[in-house]
Parts: sequence; C-alpha cells; structure tokens
Amino acid sequence: MAKDWVNPGDRDLHLELAPGPKRAALIAALRDAVRAGRLAPGTRLPPYRSLAADLGLARNTVAEAYAELVAEGWLTAVQGSGTRVAERAEPLKPVRTPKKAPGAPKPVHNLRQGRPDATSFPRTEWLAAARRALNVAPHDAFGPGDPRGRPELRDALAQYLARARGVRTSPERIVVCSGFAHALRLLFPAVLPGPLAVESYGLAFHRSIFAAAGVRTIPLALDEHGARVEDLDVPSVLLTPAHQFPTGGPLHHDRRTAVVGHVRASGGVLLEDDYDGEFRYDRKPVGAVQGLDPEHVVYLGSVSKSLSPALRLGWLVLPGHLVDRVLAVKGEREAWAGVLDQLTLAQFLNDGAYDRHIRRMRRRYRRRRDQLVTTLAERTPHVTATGIAAGLHAVLRLPPGTEKAALKAAAWQGLALDGLAAFRHPGSSMSTMDGLVVGYATPPEHAYPAALDALCRSLPPA
Amino acid sequence: MAKDWVNPGDRDLHLELAPGPKRAALIAALRDAVRAGRLAPGTRLPPYRSLAADLGLARNTVAEAYAELVAEGWLTAVQGSGTRVAERAEPLKPVRTPKKAPGAPKPVHNLRQGRPDATSFPRTEWLAAARRALNVAPHDAFGPGDPRGRPELRDALAQYLARARGVRTSPERIVVCSGFAHALRLLFPAVLPGPLAVESYGLAFHRSIFAAAGVRTIPLALDEHGARVEDLDVPSVLLTPAHQFPTGGPLHHDRRTAVVGHVRASGGVLLEDDYDGEFRYDRKPVGAVQGLDPEHVVYLGSVSKSLSPALRLGWLVLPGHLVDRVLAVKGEREAWAGVLDQLTLAQFLNDGAYDRHIRRMRRRYRRRRDQLVTTLAERTPHVTATGIAAGLHAVLRLPPGTEKAALKAAAWQGLALDGLAAFRHPGSSMSTMDGLVVGYATPPEHAYPAALDALCRSLPPA
Repeated sequence: MAKDWVNPGDRDLHLELAPGPKRAALIAALRDAVRAGRLAPGTRLPPYRSLAADLGLARNTVAEAYAELVAEGWLTAVQGSGTRVAERAEPLKPVRTPKKAPGAPKPVHNLRQGRPDATSFPRTEWLAAARRALNVAPHDAFGPGDPRGRPELRDALAQYLARARGVRTSPERIVVCSGFAHALRLLFPAVLPGPLAVESYGLAFHRSIFAAAGVRTIPLALDEHGARVEDLDVPSVLLTPAHQFPTGGPLHHDRRTAVVGHVRASGGVLLEDDYDGEFRYDRKPVGAVQGLDPEHVVYLGSVSKSLSPALRLGWLVLPGHLVDRVLAVKGEREAWAGVLDQLTLAQFLNDGAYDRHIRRMRRRYRRRRDQLVTTLAERTPHVTATGIAAGLHAVLRLPPGTEKAALKAAAWQGLALDGLAAFRHPGSSMSTMDGLVVGYATPPEHAYPAALDALCRSLPPA
Repeated sequence: MAKDWVNPGDRDLHLELAPGPKRAALIAALRDAVRAGRLAPGTRLPPYRSLAADLGLARNTVAEAYAELVAEGWLTAVQGSGTRVAERAEPLKPVRTPKKAPGAPKPVHNLRQGRPDATSFPRTEWLAAARRALNVAPHDAFGPGDPRGRPELRDALAQYLARARGVRTSPERIVVCSGFAHALRLLFPAVLPGPLAVESYGLAFHRSIFAAAGVRTIPLALDEHGARVEDLDVPSVLLTPAHQFPTGGPLHHDRRTAVVGHVRASGGVLLEDDYDGEFRYDRKPVGAVQGLDPEHVVYLGSVSKSLSPALRLGWLVLPGHLVDRVLAVKGEREAWAGVLDQLTLAQFLNDGAYDRHIRRMRRRYRRRRDQLVTTLAERTPHVTATGIAAGLHAVLRLPPGTEKAALKAAAWQGLALDGLAAFRHPGSSMSTMDGLVVGYATPPEHAYPAALDALCRSLPPA
C-alpha cells in the first residue's frame, strides 16, 4: 500500500516550541531536551522533512536549527547516518542504585534445582516455528485474546498430553496461563477455597501463594512410596505423582488409585503437578494420574522445565465443571499469556520439534545424572544420590544434623544449591531429613564438571 | 553436538504394558489408547526403533504390533510419512459445549473502541526483530526472569518514551508488566490503598479492578477542559491527560500544572494513563504530564493500542520511591511477561520499526477519521464527531435521551459499538451525556466503508 509508505528514518520526537520565531524556539527546545537528559547521547534525530512536517515548520528551519546545534556541540551529523545527540552531552543521572543483596558474592557454580540449562533453548527451531505460526495465523489472533488461550495451542496440547502423558481431555477443558504459579492463583481461593493437603516437602513459593490466598495447607507425610494419601482428612490435595518434588520417588501404584478414590468419594479434587513428567530416564513409564479420572483431577503443566521459564506459558487441564469457574476468574479477555508465544508453541508441538527437544535434553540430563552418580561413587561413596529415575534434580541424603554444615561448605566453594530443610512444610510432623537438592540440569554443559567437583568438596567426610 | 542428535520423527508415546508376552501387551495398549480416544485420528506414532528403545522392546516386536493394528484398521501406514492413527477410529467425544451468549448473533460491523486494526500487525517486521533479538540474546535471558523486565527493553523504553512522549525517566524506574490491567493490579491495593479519584467517564473494566482490590473510586466531573482537577479532595488520581477516554479532549494546560501541584502538596500520585498518546493527528504536541514531576507521577503505557493487545506487554514508569514496593508485589521472579516478546519489542524499538509502524498507522487512522467526518457531514450533518484530534475513536454526541434508541438501531444494522452510558461512573453527579463511541481503528480497511454506512443508518434523524 503505497500511501502507507513511511521514510525508514522517521521517528517521533516530542517537542514543545515556545511562542516567537520558529528557528530560535526549535533550537531552545532541542537544547533543553538534550541538557535535561531527555534525549540520551547517541539518540538519532528525525530527518529534517519528517520533523518539519510534524511541527508544521519549513524544512529549512529544521535544517538550520540542527546545523546550529551541531556547531554548538550538542548534536553531531554523521554522513549517511543522520543527526544524533552528541556523546559529550551530559548523560541522565542515575536516580537510584539498584538493590543488591548485601555482601553476597555471585556464586561461581549453580546447582539450584528447578530450571533447565538456559544455554539449551532451541533458538533456531523456536524461530522457525514462530515464522510458520505467524505466516498462517488468522487476523483475529492479533485482536483481544480468548481467556481460554488460542485454539491452536489447546488442540496441540490435548493431542500431545494424551500421547505423551496419558492425559484424557479435549481442547475445551484446557485453559492456558502464564505458568504454574498463575494456575494456582486462578484456582485459589475463588474456585477452590481450601483447605488443601500438600506434601510435607515442596516449594515454599507455592506455600506462600496459598497463604496469600488465605488457603490453609495441611502437610501430608512422605514415605518410600510417596505421599501417605491414606492419611488424607480433607477433600482436596496437591501432589507431584510422577516424581515427588523434591525427594524424587513416584507415587506408588496403589496410592494413585487410592487418592483418586478419595477425591471422588469426598467431592474434592486432586491437583496433579506434572512439573517434570517428561524427563524419565528408566523404562517404566509413569503417566498422569489424571487419566484415571478426568472429572476429579486438575492436571497442571508448563514449559518452564521443558523449554524455558522465560516463555511464561502453562496450562490447566480441568474437570468439565470447573472450566467456566476458572474462566470467570480469568476475565473476559486474555490479560496474561502472550498470543505469539502460544501460536509458536502450538506449531512447535505439531511439528514434532517439542518431542525432539525433549529427547535431546533427556539424553543430556541423563548423562549428567550418570556423571553425578559415578563421581559420587568414586569420590564420596558414603553419599548416594536418590530420586534419580527422573527429573532435573537428585537428592543427596546426609547424616542427621549435617545439612547446614554442608550448605556452608558449599557456599565456601562458591556453589549455590538448597538443602531439604528449605522445602519442608513448617507444620509437618514427620521426622526431618537432611540432604542436598542437586539441580544437575541448571549449569551449562561446560560448567557442569566444575560444579560437580565443588559439590564433592562440600560433602561431609565419611 | 553429535551425541545430542535425535531422529526427527521421534515422539514420546506414553504406554503402560500389561505383564505377559510383549507383543500382545503392546498391541492391547495401543488399541486401548486409540479406542479411548487418547490417540486422536491422524496422530503420528513414533518410529519402531524409537518406541522399542523407550519401552525396552525389540524393534521387531514394535514393527509386528504396528503391522497387526494396521491390518485391524486401527492404524494406517503411509509410505514416507510413517504410521498414523486411522481416521475411521472413533474421535474423542466433546465433553461440553462451549458457552455462548444466548441469541446474540455475531455482529457484521465492528466499531467497538479500544483496539487497533488486527489486520495491521506488522508480522514481517516483528519476526525480523525477533530473529535479531534471539540471535544476540545472552543465555541468561532463558533462565528465570527479572521481575523488572529485561534490561534491553527497559533501556529501549526509557529512550523512546523520552524522545516521543516527553517522559523523564531511567531504565531502573521502569517495570515491565502484562498490560494496563496488570499494572493496576500491581499498584492496588498493596502500593496504593486508595481512595482514588477517577474521571466520571472511563472504562468499566478498570473500575471493576479497583472494586475487586477494595479501592474506593471518587468520580471527577469533566468539562470542555478535561477533568475538573480543582475539585480533587483525595491525594491520588487516575487521568487520561493526552486524550480523555472516552470523551476525547486533552487536559487543559493549566490543569496539567494544577494536578501536579495537587499531588505534590497532598503526598499523592497522579496515575497517567497514556493509552493512545502516540496517535495525534494535529500538530500541537501533547506530551506526558509525567515530565513535569517524575517523582509524583506513575506513567502507564502498553503496546495494546499501538501494536496489538495479543502481545500482553505494558510498562509502569515509577517515581523512585515506588519501584521497590511494586517489585515486592511482583515477586522474586518474572511470572507474567514473556521474555521473548520483551526482547523482540526492545529490538523493534531500537531498529526504528516501532516509529515506522506508528507513523504508518497514524496515517491510516487519520484517513479513517477524515472519512468519518466527511461522511457524517454529507449524510447526517446534524451529528458531529468530537474528540477527533487524536486517538483511535471519536464520540458522536446525540440529543438527550436518544442514545439507547441509536444503540438499538445499530444492533439492528448488525453494528457493534458502545454508547457513552457504558463508560459513566455510577457515582458521578455530572449531567449525563448521550453519545456513541466510534472505534474507527477496529475494522480491517476493506470493512470500514460498510461499517460507516451502518453507523449513519443508526443515527437519529435531524
């Protein structure tokens, strides 16, 4: 459309001219803007014609004003790159120093749990999916968004989750959100007022969301078969059945059946946090509990572990009767999850790029897990890694009372990681466990051996 | 990295095999998955080798199971495209019909305010910016996000807002969010408990956010110079100074000064909603009030009008003393705004693509505005468009008592738009105004003439 053509160098510049001669007013306004720091050094000014048109001045008036300010040293004119604010102009003063944790130096090694290797994000494949998605997206994708999420993504998720995780659902029961924390905020307290049983070990961040929502949480003890669901005395419960977070085992088969029986009989729901269900390294598949009873399980997932927490995309797979209630909380229009990333993820799933990425990462993380096990066996055979059949982390159980000292030793080695105590529900009555939670997916490939070395040097002697 | 190579066709498939002979167990598991609808028709199955490796079976066992199911009609094998679930398999039953507004047919013409022409999203330029941004993004961009937002975007916004809108700020004072509604939720009630003065006409959606936050709003009357800020009797106030929403005038110069004096003297803040400040069609620039006193003004903007509400990106430009308080509400990590879109927008701004897009759209919307004015002058000279110096909408004032009838006539013409009554604060004591709010940016180019025609046919006779 030729009439919509714009000069590639055209830029908006807000200037208020004082009354009087135009040229002098323009010079004063530009000088003030540079002096006040509003126009930063290096900022490119609009071409003469464009600024002249915007301000209703003659082209020559602007040219003369620029020339005058170049002469005064406020601006510089560079052949072929237009007129810019001179570098010698005083920069904007910093208004405040950013908050820093006092005295805590940046750790050298990072084995904090909960995040994938940030260097592994599949930039090229993601961009290819974005291009394909943008090429075929209907125009209405750029209008106000449906709070359920884009239909393309819900279709792709319904198929993928059925195929790869054993989830039984349909696109109308899926609601897209900005990640797991957002999902909890949508559910609590408006849809599920609580109380809620939770595992005795879990993320403090999630507990703080429940507390802020006024939802009381009741800790459930863990044993070697996972959460003791036979102790449940409230209708609803949040579990990590595929890979208990952080201790690492799967929920025993009998307990999977038992918890479904419990929520069905009591009219509650099971919230199934399938945070790393795709990363299983042995051959025994652990599908979603949701498949056992889609009407009593809310299945929660996201791309935060599989792709990146930077995408801010997650999903709720809901029992039919909760869909409208969750949408009522979300509001009339999508206010959160970006539509372009939704369309791109749908394409990424449909192209098989998601499966390929998962397989690539599964192989990489399994190698790291094996390296962890081997290194421990060689250097500290009295400490073994547990919860290692799946996931992005392992737990190193320690003798009672030694966790704090090990964390101090780790800090001394410049190694960032958490102890089990950080995950314990303050109301839990089960006996405390000492241990380190090792997020072996976190560091980039090249940094992993040194991080493992620092870990071994932090462990208590035999 | 050769060791991370994966077969492009590899896909995850969750199957639980019953004990006993492997081949029979696999056939039963696949048949069940297809029968239960868990594997939708057309779903591509993993290659033999890949599924065999995942399940710990011999490659031949999988090949035989697939062949058997192809023979039974559950699967189809297509040369070169692998094995897929057959189309004749029974599809998943719909679990519920999606909610529909009863009896309301989809309107033919859309002149609802508040959204840009969805066909105008600059797909090619956005994708080019995404590619450039992804190419240079540091790895940490794919880790957990900074709740302030990406530094690249805050730098680009600080420069752009200074240059184009006269905002005085620095990147440390900018907090990225998911749009204007998210910004309000971050501020109210934790940072600003209320009460809050608001304009007598504004978005009901915003009032509902204040109500949900327990913040009392006090309506401020409007006159031909904008909101009557001399009537303010609470410290803080939300205004749309550049272009009052929806009535359309700029706040008078004396009142800009007066409201800054008021918030400074009373210890309150001015919330400046600059929702369409970039779309001005005359030559009198109306910069941000924020430039007058950055320590007492919270400046709020987003790309929802300039690019698309589908991006879910907005920003708060904060007084120094509010930055940490807003971040405390936001939490330790970015939980909302997607990082890829943030990086892309930064690149889009720095490349000048944002300015070019704004100029292109400004020209297009100005043409539409002119067309509206001309058409009204020709066909219904007794109705004139007001508030037309800027923005994406105009107001057609109507004789008292005629708004409802005009809206009914519009519905009859299949035309969706709102009347002024929809925007009125229920507590306002100013005399009511009758009028139609015409969002002339909303329809695609080709649909605009017909929408204008329907509008003229909806207006009351002279």
